[in-house]
Amino acid sequence: MAELAQLIDSEVFLAYATYTTIVLFKMMLMSLVTAFFRMTRKAFSNPEDTATFGKGENAKKYLRTDPDVERARRGHLNDLENIVPFIGIGLLYALSGPALSTALLHFRIFVGARIFHTIAYLTPLPQPSRGLSWLAGYAVTISMAYRVLKTGLYL
Amino acid sequence: MAELAQLIDSEVFLAYATYTTIVLFKMMLMSLVTAFFRMTRKAFSNPEDTATFGKGENAKKYLRTDPDVERARRGHLNDLENIVPFIGIGLLYALSGPALSTALLHFRIFVGARIFHTIAYLTPLPQPSRGLSWLAGYAVTISMAYRVLKTGLYL
Amino acid sequence: MAELAQLIDSEVFLAYATYTTIVLFKMMLMSLVTAFFRMTRKAFSNPEDTATFGKGENAKKYLRTDPDVERARRGHLNDLENIVPFIGIGLLYALSGPALSTALLHFRIFVGARIFHTIAYLTPLPQPSRGLSWLAGYAVTISMAYRVLKTGLYL
Repeated sequence: MAELAQLIDSEVFLAYATYTTIVLFKMMLMSLVTAFFRMTRKAFSNPEDTATFGKGENAKKYLRTDPDVERARRGHLNDLENIVPFIGIGLLYALSGPALSTALLHFRIFVGARIFHTIAYLTPLPQPSRGLSWLAGYAVTISMAYRVLKTGLYL
Repeated sequence: MAELAQLIDSEVFLAYATYTTIVLFKMMLMSLVTAFFRMTRKAFSNPEDTATFGKGENAKKYLRTDPDVERARRGHLNDLENIVPFIGIGLLYALSGPALSTALLHFRIFVGARIFHTIAYLTPLPQPSRGLSWLAGYAVTISMAYRVLKTGLYL
Repeated sequence: MAELAQLIDSEVFLAYATYTTIVLFKMMLMSLVTAFFRMTRKAFSNPEDTATFGKGENAKKYLRTDPDVERARRGHLNDLENIVPFIGIGLLYALSGPALSTALLHFRIFVGARIFHTIAYLTPLPQPSRGLSWLAGYAVTISMAYRVLKTGLYL
């Protein structure tokens, strides 16, 4: 990790920027999926969101949970739990001077695994599809964390 | 994205640092809002948190959900879902060499929109106040992501 | 914040990389804790996760919440709410040129407090153990945010 200032210009950093942006964009789409299910299933959390459906008891019945809405929300939260470590550790990994091909392998597997995870969650595909795609992303992040700590451990 | 090392000294990066810190600080305040409602509404999630109210059945009745607590928690989670992409994509955007005025416009709209979102959520203001403030922050992040990918796409 | 390009090589940045990786790794372990409780308590959220327990009514009874699972999930969400600000503000703090000893003090207290917070949440230890460990991490992040804004405020 000695020549960070040079490395920040590197193709590895560009690749990190590209894949991070893609996977964060994918996570942002989960908001739209949740909103879509809330509208079509008429299932809301806030009284002010149901005001267009009338007043009083008529609107109150839309303050409910719906399996599809909850599924999309769980997928979104799982994204947060897994993409946050990827971004944080991935940035430090990109600055630690890995070989471009190794870095690309990490980023591609992670982003591919998270996209597949979302498909597996929303379809839903039978297990262990979702479990394995979660594990693939998790293993990539651990592998990057290992390299960061090996390269420049300062306790 | 060719001259990152120079750009990191730029006013754009300083602006990114300032607005990121402000919006993260705002997000952290949501913890205090939730704690405030938990105390005043006496609505807790953990048995050990109700121990000061006595033992057994007397304390157990405070293990409940409360509309105000849940509202603050939803606002907090919505912050996480939207501020995490802003920080990640915003960092790469700040390093992609945008014009200072354009960057400031992005950062200011985002932070303003998120502050208004919190006000709209907690008051609550009638819709579409909250929806539009959410959309403004979302659109800013998409706009930054577009520039990052256009500037230096590496797949 | 004038000489960022040089500072990024500094020991402060190495320390930031090390402690961020450790605390994100700790957060990732919460996924395993939740998975462990879901398996041993047989409490799942998704119908496809209970397919191995048989079909129909027999599997449906495992679609339930469990106090230990919910506790682990609350701990995980609390991590997200607190570690995300630490990573974002901590990065800018590390680039703001603090003294190494001061920076190490901040990073060590934060990471120690979050590890203790997890122990206090999962055991659970009587309050105010969990509350104080949460407060310690919160105060460290505020202290770093104060320095970032003082060093280079650009509104």
